[in-house]
Amino acid sequence: MFRNFKVVSKVIFGRGSLNQLDDILQPHRTQTGGFMVFLLDDVFENAPLQKRLPLYPNDMLIPVNVHDEPKTSQVDRLRDQVKAFSPNLPDGVIGIGGGSVMDLAKAVSLMLTNPGSSADYQGWDLIRNPAVYHVGIPTLSGTGAEVSRTTVLTGPQKKLGINSDFTVFDQVVLDPELIRDAPKEQRFYTGMDCYIHCVESLEGTYLNMFSQAYGEKAMELCRDVFLKDLPDSDDRLMMASYFGGMSIAYSQVGIAHALSYGLAFMLGIHHGIGNSIVFDQLEEFYPEGVREFRQMMERQGITLPRHIMQPVSADQIERMIDVAMMLDPLWENALGKDWKSIMTRERIRQLYLAM
Amino acid sequence: MFRNFKVVSKVIFGRGSLNQLDDILQPHRTQTGGFMVFLLDDVFENAPLQKRLPLYPNDMLIPVNVHDEPKTSQVDRLRDQVKAFSPNLPDGVIGIGGGSVMDLAKAVSLMLTNPGSSADYQGWDLIRNPAVYHVGIPTLSGTGAEVSRTTVLTGPQKKLGINSDFTVFDQVVLDPELIRDAPKEQRFYTGMDCYIHCVESLEGTYLNMFSQAYGEKAMELCRDVFLKDLPDSDDRLMMASYFGGMSIAYSQVGIAHALSYGLAFMLGIHHGIGNSIVFDQLEEFYPEGVREFRQMMERQGITLPRHIMQPVSADQIERMIDVAMMLDPLWENALGKDWKSIMTRERIRQLYLAM
Repeated sequence: MFRNFKVVSKVIFGRGSLNQLDDILQPHRTQTGGFMVFLLDDVFENAPLQKRLPLYPNDMLIPVNVHDEPKTSQVDRLRDQVKAFSPNLPDGVIGIGGGSVMDLAKAVSLMLTNPGSSADYQGWDLIRNPAVYHVGIPTLSGTGAEVSRTTVLTGPQKKLGINSDFTVFDQVVLDPELIRDAPKEQRFYTGMDCYIHCVESLEGTYLNMFSQAYGEKAMELCRDVFLKDLPDSDDRLMMASYFGGMSIAYSQVGIAHALSYGLAFMLGIHHGIGNSIVFDQLEEFYPEGVREFRQMMERQGITLPRHIMQPVSADQIERMIDVAMMLDPLWENALGKDWKSIMTRERIRQLYLAM
Repeated sequence: MFRNFKVVSKVIFGRGSLNQLDDILQPHRTQTGGFMVFLLDDVFENAPLQKRLPLYPNDMLIPVNVHDEPKTSQVDRLRDQVKAFSPNLPDGVIGIGGGSVMDLAKAVSLMLTNPGSSADYQGWDLIRNPAVYHVGIPTLSGTGAEVSRTTVLTGPQKKLGINSDFTVFDQVVLDPELIRDAPKEQRFYTGMDCYIHCVESLEGTYLNMFSQAYGEKAMELCRDVFLKDLPDSDDRLMMASYFGGMSIAYSQVGIAHALSYGLAFMLGIHHGIGNSIVFDQLEEFYPEGVREFRQMMERQGITLPRHIMQPVSADQIERMIDVAMMLDPLWENALGKDWKSIMTRERIRQLYLAM
């Protein structure tokens, strides 16, 4: 059985393409009482980017804080805020920011048309009704959130995505100028989300040629960006993220993502940096990938946080191991069906303690 | 202004994925009186492929002959045939074959919901109503018809596509097993449609990184297929065609396509072989591409038709030159705004006479 992959159906790419946002949204605006909801990463509040958004008098602009990764409670609150604003559904929800803001926009657009709490839908294909029209505009590249069919949320009981064909954006606006001013470290770690994902999927056992073609090109583009610093690096990084996201169709991540999940769960470490911290320990499993990753760090002047496990108790480490070992498909993709004989609790403990 | 590119929204890729066609179509079947229309390249009539199609008692199977390239009259006739079959619209139109059959399926799905003759819609964005749900299943790879927003038709007055967002397939099924048995020459020339397109767009002046990323990977996959004959060549060729088609978003073809248009117009030469015949004359303009193309021909044991202009009169050659010179954007992409000073009528005449 192959997955019938849902793809973002409208894509605009180009420097300055944000200027076409008004034209893009226009056909989706209803005549009377209609409004659009813009969710904007609050680092851009009152910044030039905010002023460029084509807001109409009825529209809502909601600056969102994503210092912590998105929560189901945050999604529900945003949904309630939109519902309190108008008895009508909005004509669209537009997320402008990194993976977290894009995930919030996806989740809010779903929860406007599906009853209850977003926590009820964490899982696979639990969404019943199509979302409100929703648009993703990345200002950071690497997560692949602009093309994925999930929105990763931390709920009261679990950190898990709302995975559904309805989650996928109806439109993305890929304007490389928007990622130009991202802070150096954030740009790097977010880019590494793409690079590490590609290493894990290309070295994995689940691959087919669709994902391989996308993954190989995404990796090549990451090399251009982080090892060569070409003048059009922003364009390349934006395409790397898009291709990396597309490559997920028939692939699976591996050891770095499995262990990083434990870090996020116990220490609240963000996805990009968590993956990098873990990946640096995985030379045995991904020798070429880790070597190249270190070259990229060096060239970009990035220093990884060290000794992050010092405040963690022995009991907590055991729970992190539990969390990591639950992710069967990731381990199997990386190490084959017999992965438990290779990746024992003790081996995982050593890896964590070295971080 | 960047194009807001409409993408095929559901894609399934994998060896044997055709076996999932019944499941894929099921949600689109209406309860009573509903039917699907299968347009099948008639080379598969009564062949094993035909027997694998999930036909229900009410469905229509129409074998189509594409010895000649698709005509508007053929589209209109097929549309009338479907309308005579049932007073209701079909639940879907599925095209199984090469670029010509896929183009017919696209055009029929459009003409079932738009009045008049398909000749009325040759051009850009003339279609007013969404098409019937339509699915493309390639059995030849290279044209990119599986992802394009056009369906190229020869009408009473012109050869021109119906270019529209509504033309794009709702679903494609990419099963590399289906291209395995294509005749060697047809496989090669169709593959060269992709390769030559990539050379022309990558060497052109219109490119951006979206199209470059897709185009470069498509070219690399063509090399794998035609210079290395890897065991998974069918998978690679299928992805090359998909990527080549995607790369058209922000690119334009060049000299080979412009001259090939004249060949098609006057001699009825099919698109793939026509491009190859022309491209072989363009070493001056695309030196590396032409050299590699010849290596591919040699490795694949392909001999190009020669002396094709012998039956053509001097007057006819002048008309071919007229036709080729009309394609301003192609020439400009290849040679810049000042192309007419480089590509004179005399120069085109020499190129044609050498074929």
